[in-house]
Amino acid sequence: MWSENNGLNSNELKGYRGSTYELLKQIDASIGDMIEITKNGENYLGGLMPRSESGDDQHIVIKIKSGYNIGVKIDSTTKIAKIGAGAKPTFIRPPSPDHKEDLSKVDIISTGGTIASRVDYRTGAVQPALSAADLYSSIPELSDLANINAHILYSELSENISPHHWIGMAEKISEVIKSGTDGIVICHGTDTMSYSAAALSFALRNLPIPIIMVGSQRSSDRPSSDAATNLMGAVAIASKAPFAEVTVAMHGKSSDNDILVHKGTKVRKCHTSGRFAFRSVNASPVATYNIQNSSLKMNWDQYQKRDSNRKLNLEARFNDNVLLLKSYPGMKSELIEWAIEKYSGIILEGTGLGHVSQNLLNAIKKGIEKGVFFCMTSQCIWGRINMNVYTTGRDLLRLGVLPLKDMLPETALVKMMWTFGQTTKLEDAKKIMITNIAGEMSPRTLPEDVSQ
Amino acid sequence: MWSENNGLNSNELKGYRGSTYELLKQIDASIGDMIEITKNGENYLGGLMPRSESGDDQHIVIKIKSGYNIGVKIDSTTKIAKIGAGAKPTFIRPPSPDHKEDLSKVDIISTGGTIASRVDYRTGAVQPALSAADLYSSIPELSDLANINAHILYSELSENISPHHWIGMAEKISEVIKSGTDGIVICHGTDTMSYSAAALSFALRNLPIPIIMVGSQRSSDRPSSDAATNLMGAVAIASKAPFAEVTVAMHGKSSDNDILVHKGTKVRKCHTSGRFAFRSVNASPVATYNIQNSSLKMNWDQYQKRDSNRKLNLEARFNDNVLLLKSYPGMKSELIEWAIEKYSGIILEGTGLGHVSQNLLNAIKKGIEKGVFFCMTSQCIWGRINMNVYTTGRDLLRLGVLPLKDMLPETALVKMMWTFGQTTKLEDAKKIMITNIAGEMSPRTLPEDVSQ
Repeated sequence: MWSENNGLNSNELKGYRGSTYELLKQIDASIGDMIEITKNGENYLGGLMPRSESGDDQHIVIKIKSGYNIGVKIDSTTKIAKIGAGAKPTFIRPPSPDHKEDLSKVDIISTGGTIASRVDYRTGAVQPALSAADLYSSIPELSDLANINAHILYSELSENISPHHWIGMAEKISEVIKSGTDGIVICHGTDTMSYSAAALSFALRNLPIPIIMVGSQRSSDRPSSDAATNLMGAVAIASKAPFAEVTVAMHGKSSDNDILVHKGTKVRKCHTSGRFAFRSVNASPVATYNIQNSSLKMNWDQYQKRDSNRKLNLEARFNDNVLLLKSYPGMKSELIEWAIEKYSGIILEGTGLGHVSQNLLNAIKKGIEKGVFFCMTSQCIWGRINMNVYTTGRDLLRLGVLPLKDMLPETALVKMMWTFGQTTKLEDAKKIMITNIAGEMSPRTLPEDVSQ
Repeated sequence: MWSENNGLNSNELKGYRGSTYELLKQIDASIGDMIEITKNGENYLGGLMPRSESGDDQHIVIKIKSGYNIGVKIDSTTKIAKIGAGAKPTFIRPPSPDHKEDLSKVDIISTGGTIASRVDYRTGAVQPALSAADLYSSIPELSDLANINAHILYSELSENISPHHWIGMAEKISEVIKSGTDGIVICHGTDTMSYSAAALSFALRNLPIPIIMVGSQRSSDRPSSDAATNLMGAVAIASKAPFAEVTVAMHGKSSDNDILVHKGTKVRKCHTSGRFAFRSVNASPVATYNIQNSSLKMNWDQYQKRDSNRKLNLEARFNDNVLLLKSYPGMKSELIEWAIEKYSGIILEGTGLGHVSQNLLNAIKKGIEKGVFFCMTSQCIWGRINMNVYTTGRDLLRLGVLPLKDMLPETALVKMMWTFGQTTKLEDAKKIMITNIAGEMSPRTLPEDVSQ
């Protein structure tokens, strides 16, 4: 159960402490129970909500009938009573719409995250809601876009997604493709969606159909939620896109009607909370989908075309014995000294064109002599590595640090994990890292006004 | 000498190997020597240039009279002769312009980097060129902007700038302010300029005058160089700005005439090579300077006003026993297990609203129990930490990880180093980290279309 993963055990009074905790304990209340609070002649009725850790110990928070949360400050005159135990959440499950012959078949594979959930108004906890019936009940418009088949693969917040989940996703996609489909949508938490998009880009060679990853920045109980529009966009794109690539489809900047489609190896989450959080870096978006007029405009003219006869080549092996290190002023060499004893490869997120402080060079040299594979990316994010301009870059090149052109640090990390899943030989790993496998390196960097 | 720091020892044939190395060795050539190459009846004359490490062993590169570099492919018919030894570089030093009573006094303190250098056409190496006379000879327009006093403090590529340099810069600034000046320009390499800007923002409390940091992305021998315009802009801003804040002044996006002035704690290098590399994050630029009409437009209405009677409070102590760790899928807890034995504090660069994978929680818990100070920032860069939304965030809060609102990870690292320079007590450190000292946290995050 999601709510257990979530740590929202209703037998606890999560987040309450001090006098409010004592008061709730006295009436044997649990999160989710129906509570009545009487204060200054006013009655407040609602489900008991968990508190955040940073909250005070003065307020009790309940979700009232309208769906809003209110906090009632407790003082010596306040009375509180438990009216009823929390009810189990129920979902209305209408029958799935009939199969429509004129629509494509789209499979939705859920891995968790905000997009794949509905908020339980009882506790505020998120619940996975991705049977086809749940989807049609939440977003009836989906039945006009495609015949949908839904799969719940994981129910993970994406910060907990790890390389073994990438393997599971790739294998599930392979299985669904074998069973026949026109496009696949992967619902995923936004935190690490770009890492997973890169992983699938490397793992799914020779794709026949589009794989559209989608998330939402704001859950469906919020007025500004992007969950429904992003998912509708993703399904439409999966059903009709001419490309067979791993992409991320998320809310665009210019208009609420635009969903941008980003190349899986060139995309990054660049805002913690904004709906326009996902951006193509050192590349333009692959395509733009307009929700209002259901049109898909391609921005790229070179891409792998959709071809249902193409046979997928599944290369879903990852070796996580790889470290990502961001360098900074004052960084000590002891960290690299430690890392070279443990890891097969290190992605450096250097400064500027691909530099680290000179005090780290000896440790890097020692690591390379031991056979540790060092690659260079930039913490600038935008732009391209060039280690020929300054002495530090040339020194690093001479030691054997491999510059990764305009590859994102996050993509470079995933690619090195994938590379060491293909080979244990350093020379072969170097060749793979510097070969453009899934569009992770651009032939040239875009003009700065476009690329930023 | 810069050329020695640079590793460009003219007695070596840096970058040459194989047959070209042998050929140059035979004629006893060194980098910088005047070389004549004869091939297919053509003569090529120029100074011998060092090669980059990624270069082949087939070409000899010389800088010809026009200033351009050419590479000549060596084959069995090629002849090569040494015409003369490399001359020491000479700089023309015109007398400084007369003191102009109607102009402000601006002090330029150079720490190194591309902006503070001129390229030695003999070797391609950069040389510090920041006596006032050198400056006036390079950029005569400066004498119309201010009476300039120039200081060479360091000649460091900024990837080598470390906390002890921050202390040196702050002390030098204090000394110059005491001697009387209207504004200070700090020339700095761009790689770590934003880290240094944050460091000076914390170290220089109660500033009386503006401190304008400036760099250049392209050296002055390149046609698209931003060195002169950035420096002229910085001097003009230092002389006339109404604010007394540490800022970074760099080329703007919209026009070659605009120099953007960024708050020192809210600025980040976001492009490896573009001139518009520096951006205000989660804040608008403090001001915009238009070079063409010499106008400074303030974007902020709240700032510390220039006041020459205000007495600087120098708080230039930094403790570098602090680690910055970027989290990623597959990150192992062993890194945190190691770090908590070594470091007093760790800045986590988590995903999204401020998360790390659950598999790291035990190691973080262990660290916090040992008294290690953990703070959370986001690798999204834009936006604000909010650890109350999802379970992982609440779990981290409960363990005692401190969320740093919309502070940049780089600024957070510098602030923690500064904080542990002020106190060794964890409770005091927590209070300092969460107090807005130098505008490092915004009261609210800007709308996403503005902040990105």
